[in-house]
Amino acid sequence: MSVTSALGFRASGVTAGLKTSGSPDMALVVNEGPHRSAAAVFTSNRVAAAPIHWSRQVLGDGRVDAVVLNSGGANACTGPEGFQNTHATAEKVAELLGLSATDIAVCSTGLIGEQLPMDKILAGVEAAATALTDDGGAAAATAIMTTDSVSKEALWTSPANADGVTYTIGGMAKGAGMLAPGLATMLVVITTDAGVETEGLDVALRDAVRLTFNRADSDGCMSTNDTVLLMASGSSTAFPDMEEFTAGLTHVCAALARALIADAEGANHDIAITTRHADSERDAETVSRSVARSNLFKAAIFGNDPNWGRVLAAVGTTDAVFDPDKINVSINGVQIARNGCIGDSRDLVDLAPREVSVEIDLNAGIAEATIWTNDLTHAYVEENSAYSS
Amino acid sequence: MSVTSALGFRASGVTAGLKTSGSPDMALVVNEGPHRSAAAVFTSNRVAAAPIHWSRQVLGDGRVDAVVLNSGGANACTGPEGFQNTHATAEKVAELLGLSATDIAVCSTGLIGEQLPMDKILAGVEAAATALTDDGGAAAATAIMTTDSVSKEALWTSPANADGVTYTIGGMAKGAGMLAPGLATMLVVITTDAGVETEGLDVALRDAVRLTFNRADSDGCMSTNDTVLLMASGSSTAFPDMEEFTAGLTHVCAALARALIADAEGANHDIAITTRHADSERDAETVSRSVARSNLFKAAIFGNDPNWGRVLAAVGTTDAVFDPDKINVSINGVQIARNGCIGDSRDLVDLAPREVSVEIDLNAGIAEATIWTNDLTHAYVEENSAYSS
Repeated sequence: MSVTSALGFRASGVTAGLKTSGSPDMALVVNEGPHRSAAAVFTSNRVAAAPIHWSRQVLGDGRVDAVVLNSGGANACTGPEGFQNTHATAEKVAELLGLSATDIAVCSTGLIGEQLPMDKILAGVEAAATALTDDGGAAAATAIMTTDSVSKEALWTSPANADGVTYTIGGMAKGAGMLAPGLATMLVVITTDAGVETEGLDVALRDAVRLTFNRADSDGCMSTNDTVLLMASGSSTAFPDMEEFTAGLTHVCAALARALIADAEGANHDIAITTRHADSERDAETVSRSVARSNLFKAAIFGNDPNWGRVLAAVGTTDAVFDPDKINVSINGVQIARNGCIGDSRDLVDLAPREVSVEIDLNAGIAEATIWTNDLTHAYVEENSAYSS
Repeated sequence: MSVTSALGFRASGVTAGLKTSGSPDMALVVNEGPHRSAAAVFTSNRVAAAPIHWSRQVLGDGRVDAVVLNSGGANACTGPEGFQNTHATAEKVAELLGLSATDIAVCSTGLIGEQLPMDKILAGVEAAATALTDDGGAAAATAIMTTDSVSKEALWTSPANADGVTYTIGGMAKGAGMLAPGLATMLVVITTDAGVETEGLDVALRDAVRLTFNRADSDGCMSTNDTVLLMASGSSTAFPDMEEFTAGLTHVCAALARALIADAEGANHDIAITTRHADSERDAETVSRSVARSNLFKAAIFGNDPNWGRVLAAVGTTDAVFDPDKINVSINGVQIARNGCIGDSRDLVDLAPREVSVEIDLNAGIAEATIWTNDLTHAYVEENSAYSS
């Protein structure tokens, strides 16, 4: 279940020496074709890292032949030298694989504001190119980890078509349930052997990301390096129905997004905040996100306290359509606020399990949306403060 | 230096028994006139507490004769019964003082979603009315405390006019540097003996609040009960210049706002985030606030880590006018990011002092704004999680 599950891809993960821990820190994923269409979603942060600027250009023509990823350094806020370093990394990959640098995407993750050690990067690229295999997906997923406790992979295989042929979508992710000491970021690479052109990939990817990664909000902080890259090889002869393909892609993205939240270091609870009966999907998302970003609410959940007042206080800060006297709130199935007022007893709510479900009923329409987040814990503060600068 | 410093006001603070601690929990401030003009700013939270709904009505005609305040219960999300309880409290004050209930403002603070014990409230009002004195300001300031470690008062006296007459502006505040276990809220009462009509008070108060309380952002959470009430007695014969009056009022509001931030329980650092050379004041405020709300940045400051990457990552999420390659960031006087890139050494930054100054230079205009906040600490998480629900 990895980026080499789909036919037509080779990958590797090696140790370039960027991490002081000596753990693997460089990954390479190569599309062997016959197609090389690709789509990507990048961080909307206006302070974007050098590899974001580079990879946006690479994606301009919808073709990506390979992506090289490093942990141990974000290459963000590094100026022209940082951009040149990204360019040189892509050139090295191109030279070794006989490709054009303009078809090589680059992703980096780690501390902002430090130049990458290019001697190690370039040597690492050589090692990664040498190590490429058609089952190297797991090694690649390991090499992009930063504070992740486990590597994250996901897989979906289509039903067989009339000719008995299937296609596969596989992905890997790193980060970032709680953003990590070095401002670790979310990097995701997804591969498929389905024969889908760039435009179809792009539409499907934006649909899937909107409902998955964009609804995971661990601490409201947006990184300078976030990238989700989808590459298609066309190695399968199955010609996918785009609705089915998008559903499969959404399944893979959702599995990876949930894995990111579930691995949030410092978190004691995974919280799904669902807003129902909203006037619009945008309203539902806004309301759920306002609660997901309330430090008071998140600290209460850490304390196993079903403090619905903090939920309503967060809802009240939004411009969503609702009547405050018609809002219901349930936590883990107990409706503790009814019509904006006191509901069933707080004592009935069991917050011992890791999984927490918050349901907000606006009684204002038919739309709904879920945001996934974590609680605010001592370990979050520790992880994000106790690091030598 | 309190709400009874200005002539024409009496106040008291008593123990009604709302707090399990047995500390004072009810305050009363009465305007003896001859004028009784008033202005107020309330929370913009759409889930507003019963006393907010009541007091908004009271302020409708610009006249307030007295304000009664209780800690130990927010009376928020308490439905029609909660509103009736607020009404009954105002009626009791009116009856005891020979006033009209429609001229009595009410403020409450404490846990959301619990009905007030009205027997204690009404007996407390009787005790408070009996205890009124013309130097009761300090007792009132103490009675509105929740998790505050000190009471907060401020005073400003005008220069003498041609007749040698001065006027005074005095205030008290409670809360909420870090919002407290019971979702404590910010309550502020300011009195003046200046003869200013309602309209002038309103303009001056909105000006002062915009630059002071609205720029204190400890944790981005907006309460259901926040109130800033300004009452003028006209006991001084000085007729104030409104520019001078507004400056004096802003001084009092700023002193109280700084006192709230400085008393933030759980905070190790008071952080002033100033954005300079912005295209507009709104841009400057937006940029400063985005940094003030970054948990990653605030946890870094707790760890004495001058992590400027987290500052730039927060700036990058805004829609302010700037070129990412022209932003400078200084922390405690050291320009550690220059032109969006690596500046002076992080090692030069001393974060040992409690006061931290972050300066962001957008190089995009001439406007500036400062937001005051605190760091994100273990004690914040503890205070907001470790409370039995």
